[in-house]
Amino acid sequence: MINTPNQLSLEWIGTYSAAGQHLPGGVARAITKLSAQRVLSMTAPLNRQFLLAQRPVGLPSRDTFNYVENPVGEPGPGQILVKNAYLSLDPAMRGWMNEGKSYIPPVAIGEVMRALGVGQVIASQHPNFAVGDYVNGAIGVQDYFLGEPHGFYKVDPSRAPLPLYLSALGMTGMTAYFALLDVGAPKAGETVVISGAAGAVGSVAGQIAKLKGCRVVGIAGGADKCKFLVDELGFDGAIDYKNEDLHAALKRECPKGVDVYFDNVGGDILDAVLTRLAFKARVVICGAISQYNNKQAIRGPANYMQLLINSARMEGMVVMTYAPRFAEAAQEMGGWLASGQLKSKEDIVDGLETFPETLLKLFSGENFGKLVLKVD
Amino acid sequence: MINTPNQLSLEWIGTYSAAGQHLPGGVARAITKLSAQRVLSMTAPLNRQFLLAQRPVGLPSRDTFNYVENPVGEPGPGQILVKNAYLSLDPAMRGWMNEGKSYIPPVAIGEVMRALGVGQVIASQHPNFAVGDYVNGAIGVQDYFLGEPHGFYKVDPSRAPLPLYLSALGMTGMTAYFALLDVGAPKAGETVVISGAAGAVGSVAGQIAKLKGCRVVGIAGGADKCKFLVDELGFDGAIDYKNEDLHAALKRECPKGVDVYFDNVGGDILDAVLTRLAFKARVVICGAISQYNNKQAIRGPANYMQLLINSARMEGMVVMTYAPRFAEAAQEMGGWLASGQLKSKEDIVDGLETFPETLLKLFSGENFGKLVLKVD
Repeated sequence: MINTPNQLSLEWIGTYSAAGQHLPGGVARAITKLSAQRVLSMTAPLNRQFLLAQRPVGLPSRDTFNYVENPVGEPGPGQILVKNAYLSLDPAMRGWMNEGKSYIPPVAIGEVMRALGVGQVIASQHPNFAVGDYVNGAIGVQDYFLGEPHGFYKVDPSRAPLPLYLSALGMTGMTAYFALLDVGAPKAGETVVISGAAGAVGSVAGQIAKLKGCRVVGIAGGADKCKFLVDELGFDGAIDYKNEDLHAALKRECPKGVDVYFDNVGGDILDAVLTRLAFKARVVICGAISQYNNKQAIRGPANYMQLLINSARMEGMVVMTYAPRFAEAAQEMGGWLASGQLKSKEDIVDGLETFPETLLKLFSGENFGKLVLKVD
Repeated sequence: MINTPNQLSLEWIGTYSAAGQHLPGGVARAITKLSAQRVLSMTAPLNRQFLLAQRPVGLPSRDTFNYVENPVGEPGPGQILVKNAYLSLDPAMRGWMNEGKSYIPPVAIGEVMRALGVGQVIASQHPNFAVGDYVNGAIGVQDYFLGEPHGFYKVDPSRAPLPLYLSALGMTGMTAYFALLDVGAPKAGETVVISGAAGAVGSVAGQIAKLKGCRVVGIAGGADKCKFLVDELGFDGAIDYKNEDLHAALKRECPKGVDVYFDNVGGDILDAVLTRLAFKARVVICGAISQYNNKQAIRGPANYMQLLINSARMEGMVVMTYAPRFAEAAQEMGGWLASGQLKSKEDIVDGLETFPETLLKLFSGENFGKLVLKVD
């Protein structure tokens, strides 16, 4: 089912900004505050947590994590307590489990597994966040977040369903937007190919490319996903990598070559698309999900010399670099969502306790749209 | 020995242009014409040629080529006959021997092996080229070129020694100039690392980076080459990949990370430098000499995801794309050569007959500076 928030108006967009401007609350806000205060006055509830127990070799499993239950604490100065509602499950989480230099430090052994998510503030000693506020941030794989709200910002559930703040209106949407438009820089009429096209980032990136006047070809696994890309999202073509010869299909769908390749998967698919690059093509490295669980070294793109012979480039990006422009992007994305030109599909799984198994849906190619874990 | 053409003045630069404007000749020109005409009046000499006999698997060898001797023909309409003087031996030649799509067609089996070079026109039925002119173009691995002068342009041996038109003032220099400045786009104060740094392109690129105010670190094989880079060319540091731990040396020489990596070699060295990229780094893919003779598939850079976590890019280029700007580059390069700020080192080997073995110096890491074959 596609969540098309036709009820959205352009008004709400102002609430979504990296700075986290807070809009005055209404009746609903007051009621929420009241019930939140009631929770705090009772005996402290238990906080179910998944801690990183060991660094996985290959696919993570239940043994990767240590499940514990601890009483919920109370915020100290500068801290907030958040009742988590939805967690964003992302391929990047696999990378956070590894040791070594990256764009953020790895999760330490014994630490709560890092996850972005949305939840409601139920106690606060931070001047910018009040009880009742809904926030988006790195709340972790647990029932409650307690700590300083570094990088947290407010969201308004009266303007869009909370899961949407993790998909098109969250890091997923920001990643698709900036990776495509800023790094890929497609021009109208160009051919844009997207792998992992039925996934969270790919499905949004492909729709944005369509809105910008490109010919858009999605690569996905299975007839259902391919049909969805063309029939529901309006892609010009789709390639079922599980059932088609990639090289032949790329030739068929991209007769003039590939101007922008938005890669979420790496491996064989990246190598195949490299052989079809057009002159001055841009390859956006957004992910490499086929490689994240390798037990051996990552396999690099053997055909990278195609960059030389086509005067092409391959470029990566970290979405947080674009934080100063999130508000601008959210405004445009919100407009497309409101008008129904952009569709966001969430795959919502119930229950924090299913976390280790639900996470694996990302790597089996099983999930369809943005994978979200409903905490309770 | 370094060829520092201090005798060059800025005047001569005008002769070096993609359009191939011809300057009026002087006494030397007249003498040259005379002797050329004398050659033509004799019995047609033999043309020694190396034809491509088979597509090599791994390193090329004498068996890769078919050596023949044919009488020299006479130019038809639109054609010229050139007495070849010097051939440019380049890693790219290995790629031209392979079948398959590239920026130019492969050399056909039975065809004269393609090579750039300089020589003198000794007969002409082309309006832009006169007997006595010296030309730069794809003259092939042979004593005489006969055909239409596609892409040929004139050079003036009174302004610079002929081999210089194959090194700093030829495609080598143009490649270094545009790959570094246009693709790498280094800013003063940034750290630029160059592999194959004692090679033809690398040694010029490194000197240009120094002239632009960068910290320049060269990677080369052996103490002699490293000493040359620092003592003769003014590099800030050098790494001897044959005798040092690459990772430790990169850390030592690039404490703030690598802003621009100019890669001529691929393989392990590319992978090592990728782990040291600075935020927003640019990796210029200029060559991959370690991979050209692989019998298996080329090994892609396993650490390419460093592009993602550093918001970095990897970009290739084909020098002919910049043909409209060659005159501009030649002007700047010529100025640097004339003032002694840019040094060009040629490794000149005598005798067309040594071609198959001389070519291998490129791949053994044996050559030092620009490898040039003197035809006779």
